[in-house]
Amino acid sequence: MFMVRIGILGATGYTALELIKLLLRHPEAEISVLTTRQEERPHVSEVHPQLNGRLDLRMENFGPRQVAERSDLVFCCLPHGAAAEATPELLAGGARVIDFSADYRLNDADTFRQWYHAEHLDPQRLGNVVYGLPEWFRKQIQEADLVANPGCYPTSAILPLAPLLKGGLIEPQDIIIDSKSGVTGAGRTPKLGFHYPECNESISAYGVGSHRHTPEISQILGRITGRDPQVIFTPHLVPMDRGILSVIYARPRGQCDQGAAMEVLRETYASEPFVRVVDHLPATKHTSLTNYCDITARTVQDRLLLISAEDNLIKGASGAAVQNFNVMYGFPETTGLV
Amino acid sequence: MFMVRIGILGATGYTALELIKLLLRHPEAEISVLTTRQEERPHVSEVHPQLNGRLDLRMENFGPRQVAERSDLVFCCLPHGAAAEATPELLAGGARVIDFSADYRLNDADTFRQWYHAEHLDPQRLGNVVYGLPEWFRKQIQEADLVANPGCYPTSAILPLAPLLKGGLIEPQDIIIDSKSGVTGAGRTPKLGFHYPECNESISAYGVGSHRHTPEISQILGRITGRDPQVIFTPHLVPMDRGILSVIYARPRGQCDQGAAMEVLRETYASEPFVRVVDHLPATKHTSLTNYCDITARTVQDRLLLISAEDNLIKGASGAAVQNFNVMYGFPETTGLV
Amino acid sequence: MFMVRIGILGATGYTALELIKLLLRHPEAEISVLTTRQEERPHVSEVHPQLNGRLDLRMENFGPRQVAERSDLVFCCLPHGAAAEATPELLAGGARVIDFSADYRLNDADTFRQWYHAEHLDPQRLGNVVYGLPEWFRKQIQEADLVANPGCYPTSAILPLAPLLKGGLIEPQDIIIDSKSGVTGAGRTPKLGFHYPECNESISAYGVGSHRHTPEISQILGRITGRDPQVIFTPHLVPMDRGILSVIYARPRGQCDQGAAMEVLRETYASEPFVRVVDHLPATKHTSLTNYCDITARTVQDRLLLISAEDNLIKGASGAAVQNFNVMYGFPETTGLV
Amino acid sequence: MFMVRIGILGATGYTALELIKLLLRHPEAEISVLTTRQEERPHVSEVHPQLNGRLDLRMENFGPRQVAERSDLVFCCLPHGAAAEATPELLAGGARVIDFSADYRLNDADTFRQWYHAEHLDPQRLGNVVYGLPEWFRKQIQEADLVANPGCYPTSAILPLAPLLKGGLIEPQDIIIDSKSGVTGAGRTPKLGFHYPECNESISAYGVGSHRHTPEISQILGRITGRDPQVIFTPHLVPMDRGILSVIYARPRGQCDQGAAMEVLRETYASEPFVRVVDHLPATKHTSLTNYCDITARTVQDRLLLISAEDNLIKGASGAAVQNFNVMYGFPETTGLV
Repeated sequence: MFMVRIGILGATGYTALELIKLLLRHPEAEISVLTTRQEERPHVSEVHPQLNGRLDLRMENFGPRQVAERSDLVFCCLPHGAAAEATPELLAGGARVIDFSADYRLNDADTFRQWYHAEHLDPQRLGNVVYGLPEWFRKQIQEADLVANPGCYPTSAILPLAPLLKGGLIEPQDIIIDSKSGVTGAGRTPKLGFHYPECNESISAYGVGSHRHTPEISQILGRITGRDPQVIFTPHLVPMDRGILSVIYARPRGQCDQGAAMEVLRETYASEPFVRVVDHLPATKHTSLTNYCDITARTVQDRLLLISAEDNLIKGASGAAVQNFNVMYGFPETTGLV
Repeated sequence: MFMVRIGILGATGYTALELIKLLLRHPEAEISVLTTRQEERPHVSEVHPQLNGRLDLRMENFGPRQVAERSDLVFCCLPHGAAAEATPELLAGGARVIDFSADYRLNDADTFRQWYHAEHLDPQRLGNVVYGLPEWFRKQIQEADLVANPGCYPTSAILPLAPLLKGGLIEPQDIIIDSKSGVTGAGRTPKLGFHYPECNESISAYGVGSHRHTPEISQILGRITGRDPQVIFTPHLVPMDRGILSVIYARPRGQCDQGAAMEVLRETYASEPFVRVVDHLPATKHTSLTNYCDITARTVQDRLLLISAEDNLIKGASGAAVQNFNVMYGFPETTGLV
Repeated sequence: MFMVRIGILGATGYTALELIKLLLRHPEAEISVLTTRQEERPHVSEVHPQLNGRLDLRMENFGPRQVAERSDLVFCCLPHGAAAEATPELLAGGARVIDFSADYRLNDADTFRQWYHAEHLDPQRLGNVVYGLPEWFRKQIQEADLVANPGCYPTSAILPLAPLLKGGLIEPQDIIIDSKSGVTGAGRTPKLGFHYPECNESISAYGVGSHRHTPEISQILGRITGRDPQVIFTPHLVPMDRGILSVIYARPRGQCDQGAAMEVLRETYASEPFVRVVDHLPATKHTSLTNYCDITARTVQDRLLLISAEDNLIKGASGAAVQNFNVMYGFPETTGLV
Repeated sequence: MFMVRIGILGATGYTALELIKLLLRHPEAEISVLTTRQEERPHVSEVHPQLNGRLDLRMENFGPRQVAERSDLVFCCLPHGAAAEATPELLAGGARVIDFSADYRLNDADTFRQWYHAEHLDPQRLGNVVYGLPEWFRKQIQEADLVANPGCYPTSAILPLAPLLKGGLIEPQDIIIDSKSGVTGAGRTPKLGFHYPECNESISAYGVGSHRHTPEISQILGRITGRDPQVIFTPHLVPMDRGILSVIYARPRGQCDQGAAMEVLRETYASEPFVRVVDHLPATKHTSLTNYCDITARTVQDRLLLISAEDNLIKGASGAAVQNFNVMYGFPETTGLV
């Protein structure tokens, strides 16, 4: 039986570590190449001691072409910019690609430039890349050679919002998303703001009005619903390793109360394996280390609140990527994820 | 020189511990009596090992009358209900009272019944009790025999909102308050939800649409501004000991942008010793263990965001109480607090 | 194909939750019955919201006989005392049993009485029950109907100590074990000592000289090595959910330095799937959520230090139990665990 | 009335922040100059937002001579090496100095070279510098122009050990110190090992057999007791901001049991304001944010255990420094510290 040969570009970070752990449990995946920009070819267990005895592989300082030769599917865990540089070569080399960066999530290069303050390196692909949210783009993912894996915050916002927005049950122009994330969301590069004694025992908002997931949320909601929503998005840094909680304040249209909202959510996600519409208030711990996104709705005065919880590294990143991988290859969608 | 004799009713919790620590540094205060409902008269250092060698006192199982006899000022740290039962006796016994519970914060017994699901035991005082937020009620506090010490969340919401609401710069009917608190806010009684492994590494919203600080925020804002604001208030439990961060989504009126909002905030609080209007985004750690509330404003699209940080046990409870004590006795307002 | 029907007695705690999560991934296990002493038959997802959508079962208030009827293998997660009450009935009912409590770990009822301050309810079995540490008792586990699953601390101490003690490389009478555990080790019952703000941001030793794992460590080391070691054991409570780190101070005999110790450890555990002898200093995070125990050795002056890390709920409890289950039924030992 | 003009060299770290906070409460101290090696003269509140509104001073890029001109007393918070470079100039400039680094703590340049792998830059002073532990060197501190402020771990080990070692109650050659510290002990420079998601939810030993506080502990114990103890010292990194817990395994001599040990500890520290000999097991939280060191003793089998808790940044650093300052200037020793 042939297994899918997997390459991981940029394997030193947290999303790559979670991805490797998931793939080690996946019966159809064989990790064939890992890369790092370091010269000295570290063993994967030197970079991630968790993997000691579980994966016997050195990280290579390979370019995309070399990775494509050794892989059927490449998970590209490079930062934005670097991803758009590597992806064309990966695809030209015959690999299918799931990209973790923001490079292929937006509709157009102008929006990219405005929010990322850089020229896009592969602008002609924008507008045609499939967004890797299987709950809404499953068919396109099946056929795709390049999938843009969603941002962690956008998944937590789009899953609850899309059904209501699509059904015309909430106002597109009055959406406030207040999200809270664990510190792994900030990556693995040491910086003062993520130094333990700086962020432990503290909570703060950051990127107020300027976080780059803002246009991703509104553009993808636009693709799904045909409407052009306007969102205010405020992320927070919470002293914990992982998890995202989003509380969304929407304005109901017509008779949309909590019951109607719950019904639409339940119907929409009835056969989805990884969306749980729950009656209780979600806590990130309920979804920790899983690929689930828990969602509920509440009417408070004249607002409809949508609340979601997920693991930022799993449903918000690497679990979603494995789910996409399963869809792309026709494996049962929960393979390696439950 | 005579010191003010201090009684603390209900001295086993976190707010009482913080209060004791502050009063031990206060040159005008002498802690004369601490109570607990336990029979065995524990030494204060058995209940609070932090106080070993700092305060040599047993806790007494005294009623309010006995406490009033031994105190000039009583800090009442009893839960709501119990506070309204004790307070009339304390006052009748000649003590001045700063009450930490919610019993004397609301305008009327009906609102109390609606949100606390109980009959108020001292309803005739409601409507006449001074709210202990010196930034807005300093004069009344000076004269008061009974001060209702503010709730932790309300302080974090009222301080940023009041100047803008009073100035007519934001809409009173469209205010969303998304607040995040450390676990000490839940008190010291062990419960599953506050068991370490349940709330560590997790964030969740709670009391959505039903938290009892909601009417306190709107009624006090009403007293200050003469308007009748409607607020949506969503509290969260954050895995940390202390701190409250509130992000408030307001709708500006007229030309009120970030600059105008900052100017009003700066002017309002220019001579306040414990409100810091800052340009950067506040983090709870910046205010930890202090009596400061840090506030900033941001325009995001068509909204004005107000963000505040405070220590829930200090500016949100015991520090505010000491500040009220200073005002009531004519001591410099920062005594024991800086 | 027939799956093993699994019963779990006492399914509301943390070890049961971890066990269920592991068994849901185990291809040979079918969870058939869960019990709780509560009357109202809660759905498992009400007790453990993590399991929402993953296991559709109500918890039953069944006695051991009813559980035995519905199970081939019972994991008994009851507290000590209750376990020795239920186990004879479970066995009489034809079930095989893996007991998580301390009831069947010790050699004799006298030692039990001395450390647990209670009469043993099933004393005649003591001395004949297999200790479920597959690394040392694999053959006996294969045949056993009753397996005493090891304590979390003992596993972290016995695995590094046994090879050296057996080889006569360290003094049996001079062993100090300084262990540090996350708070899940204290169980799920709310108590003041495990209330979040009490144990967060604090570390303390507890049970100094009196912790009940002390005789378990020395008796099992005695069984393995034929020697009669004396150990001093000091556990600590660390502000984290999970993980145990043990630092063991031993006195080398003869020429046993770090190199010799590492060689013996490596040889002993060369073919063990879940013991990793590592050169670097272990951190609990490296083993978190896995069934691995990481071990290293260091010579410091005239002492040999052995350092081990494990996840207290996995290798220290539920993972070990699944490993025992695999051994008992002849499944590959890593099934469901990697 | 004249206040002591205080200079702080190297004011960007955690010990400097704590020192500033303590000095702001000190009635005899006036902070006159803060330095950083940065060029741009940041306001102290840019580096430490906690100090917003509490200290209005820019940090200067001054050399020691300039600092000495502006200060009566300099707290030198530079790293080792840099401290020995600056101190001779500070002293020559007429300032008294309390040095936070390890440069002046050891007896001789050889030991320094062996443990710090560098040549000492001011070797002739070694052997004559007063060690700033007032409990044992109060008289010398009174007269000193240069005081070596103790290391955080050494204070936690020396305070419990010194009385027993001096009294000949424990063996000098068989002392094991197992210490656990919060992450502020590692300083404020971002590194992977102190990146939040790396050290959160994890505990590990580090510097096993090689930590530089080892010779400091044994040499200072030697100075105090006239004996030449040998210590094994193992530090750990604990996921919390602050606090050190040390568990010390000593071998009693003659009839020294727990009772005798407690009596000696109590007698020794009876009039010390900041050492609390307690019956219960200390927790770091009991000493958090205070200048106390809590100590207890336990007999376990043939060992005497000494357990201490302190705040690593206060009694382990900046609080001790203020205590030394008080002793040097003849102020009541608790000034600014209670």
